[in-house]
Amino acid sequence: MELFVELGYGQTTVADIAERAGLTTRTFFRYFPDKREVLFQGAERLEQTMVEALLQTPDGASAMSAITSAIRAAGGYFVDIQAVARRRRDVIAMNAELRERELIKLAKLSASLAEALAQRGVDAVEARLAAETGMAVFRLAFELWLADGEHRRFDAIAADLLRRLARLVPVT
Amino acid sequence: MELFVELGYGQTTVADIAERAGLTTRTFFRYFPDKREVLFQGAERLEQTMVEALLQTPDGASAMSAITSAIRAAGGYFVDIQAVARRRRDVIAMNAELRERELIKLAKLSASLAEALAQRGVDAVEARLAAETGMAVFRLAFELWLADGEHRRFDAIAADLLRRLARLVPVT
Repeated sequence: MELFVELGYGQTTVADIAERAGLTTRTFFRYFPDKREVLFQGAERLEQTMVEALLQTPDGASAMSAITSAIRAAGGYFVDIQAVARRRRDVIAMNAELRERELIKLAKLSASLAEALAQRGVDAVEARLAAETGMAVFRLAFELWLADGEHRRFDAIAADLLRRLARLVPVT
Repeated sequence: MELFVELGYGQTTVADIAERAGLTTRTFFRYFPDKREVLFQGAERLEQTMVEALLQTPDGASAMSAITSAIRAAGGYFVDIQAVARRRRDVIAMNAELRERELIKLAKLSASLAEALAQRGVDAVEARLAAETGMAVFRLAFELWLADGEHRRFDAIAADLLRRLARLVPVT
């Protein structure tokens, strides 16, 4: 992340990254297929973490409760990585291909949460709606968490947004 | 849209489009800066329509009511264009640059709705949350509206999703 910020993402090579990390490029490629994946390796694990938490919500819990469990689990994942997450955000913001990749990963996460809800017997449309609403909270919480001067933890911000959401909806 | 489907987006030239429409390329360029904007010209007007409807919601209406007005106004915009919207969706799905453009337009729409809510005195975070939640409903309604075999109007689908959302939230 340091190199992407210092040299620019486009100008950074795998050889640069390996050197900075004290690895051979061969070892780099054992962990990552290319330099782009350095930015997105966390996404798969985050998705697993969230889907597992969702599936482990007690039977009979509502779709939104299950989504809330998933968001709370993401909070556990985001502890102590705020500084690197801010740099990552800035790197992604400067590159159209990375922005698209990020948006696609988020769409995939939403689809996986909807699928996990459907596995729990939630109607398909309701599953999509709960997942998309949860992702709206997730994305906004993530953005606020990385804002300058924000000192709350991700899960505190997400819990605040979920409370606000409950006040906003239903439409009266 | 016919040409984009027939020839592929990448293979279609402005000259092809002008010829099919019985125009000179000079006239084409009076309406569109490039071929890509043929697919996105509607987005600006849609945004205006939605923002105006939001701002015209009676004072004292909740943030979600104002967002609901905006979504309902989009429904008026989407009448009688389902066939062309389906073709447009298929063209966009096949091209990474167009997919990114579409996602960026949707993000811009969400930001504009949040800004309009803030103009009405809604707290900034609440405005973003209401706009993002509304956009979750909007995007899902749009997707369902274009699904094969769907015969309901956009606004009927959106109204159904808003009712479902009211049942899903609050989390208990």
